[in-house]
Amino acid sequence: MPQVRVALAQTNPVVGDISGNLDSCFEAVKDAASQGAQVVLFGEMVATGYPIEDLAHRAGFVRQAQDAIGAFATRLQQAGFGEIAVVLGHPALATQPNGWAIAHNCASILRHGTVIGTYAKHHLPNYSVFDEHRNFVAGDELLTFEHAGLRFSTVICEDIWQAGGPVAKLGSAKTDVALVLNGSPFEIDKDDRRLGLVTNLAATHGCAVAYCNLVGGQDDLVFDGDSIVVGSDGKVVARGQQFAEDLLLIDFEAGGEAALAAPAAVTKADDHWQIWNALVLGLRDYVEKNGFKSVILGLSGGIDSAVCAALAKDALGSDRVFGVSMPSKYSSDHSRSDADDSAERLGIHIRTESIESYVAAFEAGLGLTGLSAENLQARMRGVILMGLSNQEGHLVLTTGNKTELAVGYSTIYGDSVGGFAPIKDVEKTLVWRLAEWRNQFARENGEVEPIPQNSITKPPSAELRPDQVDQDSLPEYEVLDAILDAYIERRLGRDEVIALGFAPEIVDKVIRLVSIAEWKRRQGAIGPKITSMAYGRDRRMPITNRFR
Amino acid sequence: MPQVRVALAQTNPVVGDISGNLDSCFEAVKDAASQGAQVVLFGEMVATGYPIEDLAHRAGFVRQAQDAIGAFATRLQQAGFGEIAVVLGHPALATQPNGWAIAHNCASILRHGTVIGTYAKHHLPNYSVFDEHRNFVAGDELLTFEHAGLRFSTVICEDIWQAGGPVAKLGSAKTDVALVLNGSPFEIDKDDRRLGLVTNLAATHGCAVAYCNLVGGQDDLVFDGDSIVVGSDGKVVARGQQFAEDLLLIDFEAGGEAALAAPAAVTKADDHWQIWNALVLGLRDYVEKNGFKSVILGLSGGIDSAVCAALAKDALGSDRVFGVSMPSKYSSDHSRSDADDSAERLGIHIRTESIESYVAAFEAGLGLTGLSAENLQARMRGVILMGLSNQEGHLVLTTGNKTELAVGYSTIYGDSVGGFAPIKDVEKTLVWRLAEWRNQFARENGEVEPIPQNSITKPPSAELRPDQVDQDSLPEYEVLDAILDAYIERRLGRDEVIALGFAPEIVDKVIRLVSIAEWKRRQGAIGPKITSMAYGRDRRMPITNRFR
Repeated sequence: MPQVRVALAQTNPVVGDISGNLDSCFEAVKDAASQGAQVVLFGEMVATGYPIEDLAHRAGFVRQAQDAIGAFATRLQQAGFGEIAVVLGHPALATQPNGWAIAHNCASILRHGTVIGTYAKHHLPNYSVFDEHRNFVAGDELLTFEHAGLRFSTVICEDIWQAGGPVAKLGSAKTDVALVLNGSPFEIDKDDRRLGLVTNLAATHGCAVAYCNLVGGQDDLVFDGDSIVVGSDGKVVARGQQFAEDLLLIDFEAGGEAALAAPAAVTKADDHWQIWNALVLGLRDYVEKNGFKSVILGLSGGIDSAVCAALAKDALGSDRVFGVSMPSKYSSDHSRSDADDSAERLGIHIRTESIESYVAAFEAGLGLTGLSAENLQARMRGVILMGLSNQEGHLVLTTGNKTELAVGYSTIYGDSVGGFAPIKDVEKTLVWRLAEWRNQFARENGEVEPIPQNSITKPPSAELRPDQVDQDSLPEYEVLDAILDAYIERRLGRDEVIALGFAPEIVDKVIRLVSIAEWKRRQGAIGPKITSMAYGRDRRMPITNRFR
Repeated sequence: MPQVRVALAQTNPVVGDISGNLDSCFEAVKDAASQGAQVVLFGEMVATGYPIEDLAHRAGFVRQAQDAIGAFATRLQQAGFGEIAVVLGHPALATQPNGWAIAHNCASILRHGTVIGTYAKHHLPNYSVFDEHRNFVAGDELLTFEHAGLRFSTVICEDIWQAGGPVAKLGSAKTDVALVLNGSPFEIDKDDRRLGLVTNLAATHGCAVAYCNLVGGQDDLVFDGDSIVVGSDGKVVARGQQFAEDLLLIDFEAGGEAALAAPAAVTKADDHWQIWNALVLGLRDYVEKNGFKSVILGLSGGIDSAVCAALAKDALGSDRVFGVSMPSKYSSDHSRSDADDSAERLGIHIRTESIESYVAAFEAGLGLTGLSAENLQARMRGVILMGLSNQEGHLVLTTGNKTELAVGYSTIYGDSVGGFAPIKDVEKTLVWRLAEWRNQFARENGEVEPIPQNSITKPPSAELRPDQVDQDSLPEYEVLDAILDAYIERRLGRDEVIALGFAPEIVDKVIRLVSIAEWKRRQGAIGPKITSMAYGRDRRMPITNRFR
């Protein structure tokens, strides 16, 4: 009975770096070959990185990717890997363009120095962060090929999330192993949904499923890897690491019987671990892929900046993280000491730049009072961070959380300045839980707790006027996050939210705040998506909008 | 032979203001009824405003709009307009949701107090600024109804831009008059393309076409009106005004013969007039629909701010426009005098706030030099404008042009601060041409030229260091705009742009600048789209992207 060894190569491509990405693929094939792999499967669009967004409309780019695939087949053959079937994702020009879309989202099979077949993705997701109807032309045919005595079929990502299409033919094509190329970004709980889909696919069509996902951060998305192999009996044989490159090796037999060919972890870590690592990887890859040497951020002594600093240290190491304490006359003693404590625990750089004299000069010069004077303080801090960034070359991190962003509790061009927002999709109550979790994780591993306990426990305050706390202006965060969850994530209407038991005047206030902050959100930095409804491409609302 | 009088009501709805929009529709029906209209046709989604973007995913919103349509039919009946067929656009819940989309984009026929029929848009545009596959479920059936002896069919906007679909049945449905509801935003030269489509539609199907477009600004879109009526002979009978509400009255006969029932202008104004008025309307409606009393902007004496000030004055009147001259030690005498001259010509408010002392304080405090010190100056100006905005309640206008935005020739959180960018889609060479045109228009109308001649003719400079001019850092604007047109609008590749005759080192530099400015553009203010490729929803590029 033929047995075929398949490698799932979970790699981290960079959008637009076709030659770099194919070099990584080559290394993975070499590695897999040395372990006896006869098939090597990569993720969706691994050749170009994913998503390429409107790069898909540039014929020159698509042609370059397509040509590179042909050249890569030759390279594999010349390096002695011609007997291996290499399955990888890339765009290719469509023969029938559709509107602005000129390309297919493809999977090609490379063997013996040539491309022996190309599959074009059928179901094009056009919801959430995805614009694939905009960017791609749909294909319609399942691609099945024989290799080493088994029958393999390829489909791509969304093809297994929707009913119908080529995937329905897996059984009639007598598929032994379905090869699924994925670019599936992390969301809380999505791992379980994927697992259900994959096991269900195997059971429905009576074939094994090798589900290979990308890994790595790309702007606001974090691909978490977590590739999955399921036998035709629906049992999970292997799962890839989350948030790291990986190579899984599985032996398949006719009929889709599957067995691990090399040790691989199947156990899954808990939610907080997953979220923390998603945030770390999203930040690290934004920094590395865009060529920044270091990051800089304001350290206020509060929980948000303390968590961002800890994430930055985990992502980049202490020496690449620069904190700035920027006290004003309203800053409490504990703000300064907690900021220092945070920096000391993390071993990151810290300096102090008082904003007092700058604030005084502008206040007097412009006659600013009240909220205008509060905003001014935040803007002085923005000017300092951007000045130091320009002078020294750091990427500025903005430390606002999702709750703040929702209700506009921030100063535009002030505390919102920066190129990347590590916790923009983390609601305030989750920021606290993550901080507790990270400290506990440190304790369990015998490390210093990275986040000052005082930053976790003290009442949150922007400290822009004497004795100010967030709850002067906002509902308790537990209430606020619950209302936002109902109104934004679950899209309930005002009356439906009230029916959950919240006070009408609070609900109305929150809805109003969300509406009038739309223009600020539109100008905000990107940051890693971890929920099913992140501000950004997930939620596209008009600024001019009188609906409440 | 029956003759039916049809009114095309070109109204300006506000997104989300369902009751306000239907009040405007009611007034238009009253007006049309008083002139003998038997059918009143409105634009696409007039009940909710357009585009509603992800509001389409809120069941409560869609249901509210749908209920309002039923109530509106009753109201019309009760007011004595029950004999009139009123045709208007709105969303409605679909019976078969598709992904995130739960609603159809509809046209309903109201008569005798009820909704006698509803058409659902078939072709859902999902390119350019449109996300209609994301937001709507497609319909499939043409709606034809008889009224006063003629047969009318309804279709919506994109339905006539694509082949196939319900529109193909216009002829077999024995349509006398096709009623087309549109939400078609302004672009340079689009009026001619629409006219061609409409005349072609009439000729192909042997029916008259009444094409009714919305008018008004909605965030970055400007609907220009310009409704069109064509007889079954393909001849243009009437066109609506551009950039203003209008009511066209046409008498139709069986077979689609059409005649004007009331005087209407058919002549079209020139391109510069159209562009200027698009920019004025876009700005005015952003201000009015969002409830701002006034705008504030920096006046540097340069061409961009002079043009923005003139646009603001045309949009809002002198008294609602506040200019701020913010000289530094590098500001030339002519900068200050040209800024004053600009304000004086326009009759707008002006004040002077020197940035010198603020710059000196930050430079010394942070040790900023070179480009960091240049950016600092721009940021001091941003702080001043935002401070005055917060204190006095003005909307801040940011005066950057499209060319600057393309190559990132601006300081983020500095000259880019603001809620609206009046000329963000106007390339630099067009800014000059518009200035010349606007001055000539003033001369022809016996008015003071609004833009100082010196602002038009002097070499552009950011004046952030001694004797600086833009061309120290950038190619000549004629060359730069031509390269950008080839690379961005026409999506040519590097080699194709060079093949047009541009120097490789200049092309490479421009492409590099465009790429590294992506993150700044992402955080930019919205502004009116006037080209087929405006920065914003028209062009969705990854920030992390190594393709050059």
